[in-house]
Amino acid sequence: MSIHSTLVEMRKFQVITLFPEMFTGVFGSSMMWKAHKDGYAEFSTIDLREFGVGPRRTVDDTPYGGGDGMLLKPEPLFAAVEHAKQLDPSAKVVLMTARGDSWKQATAQAYMESGENYIFICGRYEGYDERITTLVDYQLRVGDYVLTGGELPAMTIIDSIVRLIPGVLGGSESALIESFSDGETLEFPQYTRPEEFRGMRVPEVLLSGNHAAIAAWRQEHSEKA
Amino acid sequence: MSIHSTLVEMRKFQVITLFPEMFTGVFGSSMMWKAHKDGYAEFSTIDLREFGVGPRRTVDDTPYGGGDGMLLKPEPLFAAVEHAKQLDPSAKVVLMTARGDSWKQATAQAYMESGENYIFICGRYEGYDERITTLVDYQLRVGDYVLTGGELPAMTIIDSIVRLIPGVLGGSESALIESFSDGETLEFPQYTRPEEFRGMRVPEVLLSGNHAAIAAWRQEHSEKA
Repeated sequence: MSIHSTLVEMRKFQVITLFPEMFTGVFGSSMMWKAHKDGYAEFSTIDLREFGVGPRRTVDDTPYGGGDGMLLKPEPLFAAVEHAKQLDPSAKVVLMTARGDSWKQATAQAYMESGENYIFICGRYEGYDERITTLVDYQLRVGDYVLTGGELPAMTIIDSIVRLIPGVLGGSESALIESFSDGETLEFPQYTRPEEFRGMRVPEVLLSGNHAAIAAWRQEHSEKA
Repeated sequence: MSIHSTLVEMRKFQVITLFPEMFTGVFGSSMMWKAHKDGYAEFSTIDLREFGVGPRRTVDDTPYGGGDGMLLKPEPLFAAVEHAKQLDPSAKVVLMTARGDSWKQATAQAYMESGENYIFICGRYEGYDERITTLVDYQLRVGDYVLTGGELPAMTIIDSIVRLIPGVLGGSESALIESFSDGETLEFPQYTRPEEFRGMRVPEVLLSGNHAAIAAWRQEHSEKA
């Protein structure tokens, strides 16, 4: 625990999921691990199965009106969200859903700046009982593709928020962040040692020490990402 | 291992990463776990650190031409890709990068239908030596936001491909897949038991048994996702 923990309020991210084991390696590695170690953020999972109904802890049932597949039942979802809210009463509830708003870099920035904590609900199977949306503050999706559950989208959103918390990344990556505006960034080709590798040489201008020429080359070879 | 394994060619997904532990829970759970168990797909990670240079297994270095941060060096990246290619010579190499093409549902479908195997390179730190792109077949990104590494995008792409392999999902989810065209799907609110939950009732039409009225209600309440 670093000195930051006494100065910065720790951001809390709770995730309601049928697959908490998917998060162990992700929360425990790399930037997210470091953000937790340094006292910037706290991550936890809530196993939806523990709120299942009856002796078999049922979490899903067939849809009214017909249709294939199974929906997440309202009782376990409500109970899990209420449990998470007890732990963190002012946290906002985020539902990962194909009908949600598209996640963008500008949204990540806004969520970081808001100071809010979040409770993520990961959908699974073919869907969820619509009544859960009465407890939900934000509905989000991460792209124009179908995934098996909300777990990977929740991880993606958490990563993109946490890395923006001031102090989480070293100063070395701040420049990258600041190149962003309106969700766009300029990215140019980069090279490191050795100067020649398998007959491929680093562009001479980058070895020139001519800062103006280097800046011009990078601008010319930039793509909006 | 089910009977499918003798009939279907197993699709192979290799991932080159500095954080193989991030993939353990994801590959070992839910749909991906089942796809492997049933013989449809095989997932493995390659630790880039094992191909690091020198006694400290260095994988990164400073950029030519100046700039903050560290880039992934070419030697470990080339060695790791060549190792993966030895294991699967015809596999296509995919680089996760902010400058890549946007991943869409139509791309997921095309990648599934191609029958190709894939080797994913997960970028980390501030970037990678551009020369690695000479070994790369596809450059991809999953959305308009910045992530700390290519690991979550690689998981996302793999999930979206594997779930489309015929047989991986039960028949129950096929309908969902078939509602897609041009990367869009229609999604409508769904409800399951109980009929009344905390004073909220399932819409009467869904209980009516009137299939035409139900279809009309669903159409009316659909959103393009």
